Amino acid sequence: MTETQAQRAAAAVDEDRLWQRLMDMARHGATPAGGVNRQAFSAEDAEARKTMVTWAEELGLQCTTDEIGNLFLRRPGRDPSAGIVMTGSHLDSQPTGGKFDGAYGVLAGLEVLQAIASAGIETRRGLEVVAWVNEEGSRFQPGATGSLVFSGKKAAADFHASTDSAGVTLGEELDALLAATPDLGPRPTEPGLAAYIEAHIEQGPILEDGALAIGVVEAVQGSRWFSVEVRGDAAHAGTTPLGKRRDALRAAAAMVERLGREMHDPEDRVRFTVGRFEVEPNSPNTVSARVFFTIDFRHPEQEVIDRLTALIEPVCQELAGGCEVTVTRTINVPPTPFDTEVVDTIDRCAEGLSLPRTRMISGAGHDAMHLAAITPTGMIFIPCEKGISHNEIENTTPADTANGARVLAAALVELANR
Amino acid sequence: MTETQAQRAAAAVDEDRLWQRLMDMARHGATPAGGVNRQAFSAEDAEARKTMVTWAEELGLQCTTDEIGNLFLRRPGRDPSAGIVMTGSHLDSQPTGGKFDGAYGVLAGLEVLQAIASAGIETRRGLEVVAWVNEEGSRFQPGATGSLVFSGKKAAADFHASTDSAGVTLGEELDALLAATPDLGPRPTEPGLAAYIEAHIEQGPILEDGALAIGVVEAVQGSRWFSVEVRGDAAHAGTTPLGKRRDALRAAAAMVERLGREMHDPEDRVRFTVGRFEVEPNSPNTVSARVFFTIDFRHPEQEVIDRLTALIEPVCQELAGGCEVTVTRTINVPPTPFDTEVVDTIDRCAEGLSLPRTRMISGAGHDAMHLAAITPTGMIFIPCEKGISHNEIENTTPADTANGARVLAAALVELANR
Repeated sequence: MTETQAQRAAAAVDEDRLWQRLMDMARHGATPAGGVNRQAFSAEDAEARKTMVTWAEELGLQCTTDEIGNLFLRRPGRDPSAGIVMTGSHLDSQPTGGKFDGAYGVLAGLEVLQAIASAGIETRRGLEVVAWVNEEGSRFQPGATGSLVFSGKKAAADFHASTDSAGVTLGEELDALLAATPDLGPRPTEPGLAAYIEAHIEQGPILEDGALAIGVVEAVQGSRWFSVEVRGDAAHAGTTPLGKRRDALRAAAAMVERLGREMHDPEDRVRFTVGRFEVEPNSPNTVSARVFFTIDFRHPEQEVIDRLTALIEPVCQELAGGCEVTVTRTINVPPTPFDTEVVDTIDRCAEGLSLPRTRMISGAGHDAMHLAAITPTGMIFIPCEKGISHNEIENTTPADTANGARVLAAALVELANR
Repeated sequence: MTETQAQRAAAAVDEDRLWQRLMDMARHGATPAGGVNRQAFSAEDAEARKTMVTWAEELGLQCTTDEIGNLFLRRPGRDPSAGIVMTGSHLDSQPTGGKFDGAYGVLAGLEVLQAIASAGIETRRGLEVVAWVNEEGSRFQPGATGSLVFSGKKAAADFHASTDSAGVTLGEELDALLAATPDLGPRPTEPGLAAYIEAHIEQGPILEDGALAIGVVEAVQGSRWFSVEVRGDAAHAGTTPLGKRRDALRAAAAMVERLGREMHDPEDRVRFTVGRFEVEPNSPNTVSARVFFTIDFRHPEQEVIDRLTALIEPVCQELAGGCEVTVTRTINVPPTPFDTEVVDTIDRCAEGLSLPRTRMISGAGHDAMHLAAITPTGMIFIPCEKGISHNEIENTTPADTANGARVLAAALVELANR
């Protein structure tokens, strides 16, 4: 019976309807280059939210919000005391973002609720679609504001004073966002959650390169960021013998080169990136006095993170070449393993739909990381073109969005009937 | 007799008088931080020139100029048909320059002519002090304008259209400079030159570190500049496996590291500098799409320049890591060896004055490079504090300036009596 419901829900997913909603949503903040600039708490973000509410009300969903502005759209279950099964993602974008990052998870959730309704399915547990506020953190830092507050890791008040580059506070903008949809009541805190699944574009090349439709995400990898400052002496490039130099650039280049080799991983799961590298005075005929560079290190296993990042400071000191070196750890996020049962359910549903799939690790952070702290959680990835995201050319296909929604529909129904 | 004249000339050099003139000259364009901003053809440059003419006329010197505005101050010799022995340097400075770069060579020359006169010495050849215009090239590019024109390497008209950052042409400013000293006649072209010696601060640390008073400069090293562009692909630092990246920064760091090792020289005469290094998009969590860096390579021997710079392109291509690499040679100046007899004369005069000295190579370019094409040429270096130049804290000592002027006096008298 449950299997049949899950299959019927998946079959009722309408590829064209989902794609059309994705395109309609992308009009809010559309950029000339075909991308989206819909930053958190902006007028475009508020319009996107109103569109969601309009669609949800057409489907008879119960629309609520909370103190940080997350938007919830609920379809009740038969058992009002049974924990809710939630799905969703975020509607805000990077300043030069794409149409799918975040929006896909929210609209796939809405499509699933519509598919379930059109298939005449009732579930034991209620189902709820959520749009978390300010996942990107590009306007107000840090990001994942909505899921951090919902998960209880942070208080809403912790974010009110955060300002954007124009000096506007998140608190002011939150008031405006809530005022734009004045009819939304507060989300009831009972019943609690039973599970959370987030569907998202992969934002990497693994699915496309493997001709796979579905990524069954087992975990979000952990990440550590470091900043490295190398201080030498400015000197005349023509007159200063190399033996008398303290060349910050040459030392920093040696550090990047050596660290890159030390981080080599035959399984290619280590993510090691030096992405920012700044030189002073940055003049062709002056030996560099100072280099500042960043390290972004990620891996799914805490043991590997600990072992490899412990090399960073010694390697930098060894290759200082007479310069002074300061290594600072700036970010430390442990890996987030997802719930085995939720992951297995997603995997089984993809298998049942005969979709080529792989188990994989999320390289990027997602709201699901914070939900995992309070409820059994999983994620579904779909391919995106060339793995490109956070970019106006971010793209995927109608078929891939529908495949993801079908797996999501089946998995949500399974979980909602447990 | 000649030795005696040379010794008498050296003994007549007045340390206090030379230092006082250096300090007086430094008032033209003085900066609050104790340096000098006296850029070529500026009002400050014109005032400095007028001060020189005033001092020269007090000493009875013949003041002339030429079509590019070089200033000449001549003390005739006994034989009006014998080639002139010339000394000098430049009066213009970097925007945040020091008191000694250039000005020292001009004022040491003036001090020598005064010392010779006060010692009652007559020389066979005429002696002439020159202040070359626009050596620095910081306002109008290229620099060494005055010596390039005087040596016949360039025509004055080649420079007239050169504009500064405000759009003012060198031609306009040259007219204003010449108008500020309207009584200067044109320099007579006969007789020709017999020799040229330029005294200058070292602009490097070798003399100070070796507790040496005099650098006997045998050559100006050659230089080659390259720009290297490395083009990869921007990618998400968390989601893109290292095996799928074309990381421009990692490739460029490997190039800088390897080239630094390839250029190792046990004699420490190679000058290899990567001073500019620019990254796009320069974001901590984005794999770099593009790096641009420069190479400044210098050595006194053309064979070494050819042999080592031939490694640059192959090393960069070998370490491209899948990126596209373009190596462009942007500057190519061959080494300038100085005249053996002039160099030996300077060396012998420093020895005769019991000054600790070394034979050395000039790491920086000087007007003397261009004079070497038309007359036997040499240079005398004196120490500067910590080797720092092109900086408002550039410094040297009264004793060092006087030591250099004494060697210059002896050498000029020797050459002028040949």
